[in-house]
Amino acid sequence: MESPTRFILTEHSAALWRVTFNNPPVNLVDATMTSQLNALFTRAEASDSLAVIIFDSADPDFYLAHYDLSDENELRHVLAHPEEVHPWTALLARLGSLPLATISSIRGRARGAGSEFLLATDIRFASREKAIVGQFEIGMSAIAGGGPASRLPALVGRGRTFEILYGGLDYDGALAEQYGYVNRALPDKELDGFVDEFASRVASFDVQTIRDIKHFVNLVTQRPEAEYKDQMDAFWAAVNRPAQQYVAQHLFEAGLQQRSDVELDLPRWVTRFQYHSGSSVE
Amino acid sequence: MESPTRFILTEHSAALWRVTFNNPPVNLVDATMTSQLNALFTRAEASDSLAVIIFDSADPDFYLAHYDLSDENELRHVLAHPEEVHPWTALLARLGSLPLATISSIRGRARGAGSEFLLATDIRFASREKAIVGQFEIGMSAIAGGGPASRLPALVGRGRTFEILYGGLDYDGALAEQYGYVNRALPDKELDGFVDEFASRVASFDVQTIRDIKHFVNLVTQRPEAEYKDQMDAFWAAVNRPAQQYVAQHLFEAGLQQRSDVELDLPRWVTRFQYHSGSSVE
Amino acid sequence: MESPTRFILTEHSAALWRVTFNNPPVNLVDATMTSQLNALFTRAEASDSLAVIIFDSADPDFYLAHYDLSDENELRHVLAHPEEVHPWTALLARLGSLPLATISSIRGRARGAGSEFLLATDIRFASREKAIVGQFEIGMSAIAGGGPASRLPALVGRGRTFEILYGGLDYDGALAEQYGYVNRALPDKELDGFVDEFASRVASFDVQTIRDIKHFVNLVTQRPEAEYKDQMDAFWAAVNRPAQQYVAQHLFEAGLQQRSDVELDLPRWVTRFQYHSGSSVE
Repeated sequence: MESPTRFILTEHSAALWRVTFNNPPVNLVDATMTSQLNALFTRAEASDSLAVIIFDSADPDFYLAHYDLSDENELRHVLAHPEEVHPWTALLARLGSLPLATISSIRGRARGAGSEFLLATDIRFASREKAIVGQFEIGMSAIAGGGPASRLPALVGRGRTFEILYGGLDYDGALAEQYGYVNRALPDKELDGFVDEFASRVASFDVQTIRDIKHFVNLVTQRPEAEYKDQMDAFWAAVNRPAQQYVAQHLFEAGLQQRSDVELDLPRWVTRFQYHSGSSVE
Repeated sequence: MESPTRFILTEHSAALWRVTFNNPPVNLVDATMTSQLNALFTRAEASDSLAVIIFDSADPDFYLAHYDLSDENELRHVLAHPEEVHPWTALLARLGSLPLATISSIRGRARGAGSEFLLATDIRFASREKAIVGQFEIGMSAIAGGGPASRLPALVGRGRTFEILYGGLDYDGALAEQYGYVNRALPDKELDGFVDEFASRVASFDVQTIRDIKHFVNLVTQRPEAEYKDQMDAFWAAVNRPAQQYVAQHLFEAGLQQRSDVELDLPRWVTRFQYHSGSSVE
Repeated sequence: MESPTRFILTEHSAALWRVTFNNPPVNLVDATMTSQLNALFTRAEASDSLAVIIFDSADPDFYLAHYDLSDENELRHVLAHPEEVHPWTALLARLGSLPLATISSIRGRARGAGSEFLLATDIRFASREKAIVGQFEIGMSAIAGGGPASRLPALVGRGRTFEILYGGLDYDGALAEQYGYVNRALPDKELDGFVDEFASRVASFDVQTIRDIKHFVNLVTQRPEAEYKDQMDAFWAAVNRPAQQYVAQHLFEAGLQQRSDVELDLPRWVTRFQYHSGSSVE
């Protein structure tokens, strides 16, 4: 595996790895990150000893901001190949089925694809003061593509899933814990120590037992794969509509994907640029 | 649509409507309300712009008390037509599948059919001090007919569903929030502002995206329709038994369906009239 | 039914029974307890009047410690008869389908099979200060055999299920309530009164209604039986491996199944004896 550029891999031991997202300026998810994570998962799946991977971030303000929306070829490719499962959908499915325990340690913003990533890990621990999770996509006139309509109900129930997806708002650590969006919210200064202790404990246990647990809990809680493809297709159909293009264009002009107030406070910014009959897309 | 008599319809905009239940003395659900809601849903389903309906109440003590039990012809009709899906069952199914976001804003008592109604909406916000939700039907020797055995598990889990249905107790806003029975409990004086702000936000978003979210979350979380008919049939079978008729008769004599202590404190009153071998039904 | 030796049966009335676990020194679950509970369930299923069974403990420190691991013939029997459903699996399935309401009143430790038992009851009330629940089995290099991978997701969601099973940690009353592992945590001095009042209320209600509720909630929330057999088979496969035998042997030497610090603080003790290549099993 070539050295990854989108994250730092720390192999604490043969049983415990750490992936630290590091893709300035705001930790966007993109095709390169997807590819590098796939290469990492290939190594992880081949290991007989790997028990736990922690996913955290080098940027205290952004865990993973969201998916990179600047790749203009991607929409064209997706529309031309409707039979393909999108690489992001495939990566999240693979993440959910890794034969080991996966833990998100969340500090900073995890919106859109960032939230989708942590929802596909087994366990989520969050900074009470500094974690922000949410699915802002409705603010860009698109359904979230990476499957939160399938994964959130198993964590927060039907009613709170609707609230999260319809509202497109930010959820801080305390509310995310109350809803079950994350397992626990810890005081920020205790988060790293808590996660390290929990992960080290699990990593000291029998790998076959971890695999048995993963197998049976997945059997009970995983959703049919087809649901995920359909949601991703609906996302790209939305990206092909004027309502999405209108808000996206204006957000980019205002600072989207830069280290800007737009990225810090995205759920508020999206309300400025809602498309209505009469809006013009340049 | 003729003017409804059971609720006030306020069309804030083409995207946002409000239904305010207003059926004195205690906001009972009845066949007329069901019919008027069906007419409203027909209009809502035909709209291209409607994004959100808020359901609240004109009575601060009663959101929806429960189903009107005084219609003596209803039992006869139901037993004579076992193949029919009861209009209340059909209305709740239709409510759950409306192509828009539905929000219950709960102040006062929502027991029995009142609770069943809010469980069939997408999102529930409640007054922390003044909301009371519950399924009191076991106190009348009948299973709840409008499907909470199917809808509660997706919100509060299996164990708390059993507690709510076996106990027939009242749940205040704080406990309902802790259980997930409602999304959130807000301080009473903040409830209306919170709901208006949330609903206006959603109503400003793309209607197609709202429909996509509704479609996919329903696909993941809705239960088979047959479950609901079977529960309603079990309810009417109970209404046909002496144990139910005994407690119903005594509760009516004590003030049921009037603005009375019986309606204010129903879970306590039902315990006075439990039928046992030796009880006589007049 | 012969007098049970593993618990005390109190028949408060024809509608309400209490089973008080009493198997010193630490309330282990074993084949004798399973057999005596089966005999009790046979009587319960034959009753027309029984509405509620409360399960509590005579030992304030141990609700049910875990399964008795000292029966050396059991592994041999299980491996020789792979087609059989283990009696513990069958008992928990039967418990979940009793035609009445079952309530766990939890004070002291309920780990492993103790937790599996309370997860198979309908409702769990716990002492805030003195209840401890958890699935420690991973610390003994085995998946939990009695089905928590199937029952926990319906109570605590997918993420917290992974945390509980991977971590093998203790959950106190407050955290168990927050997660939904128990319905409610009550102050210890209020627990008995609360449970008695709730159980007496339910026991005063119509038995047929309780059966209807049990039927429909089970229809919605129960998992396929095959899942449970597969998990139990995976448990015994683990017991047949050196990793499990190594930690078990050392824990027994340190005081397992005695009234010892090992039993009081089991999740900490298991970390001392994890098997690694190089560990020797005597």
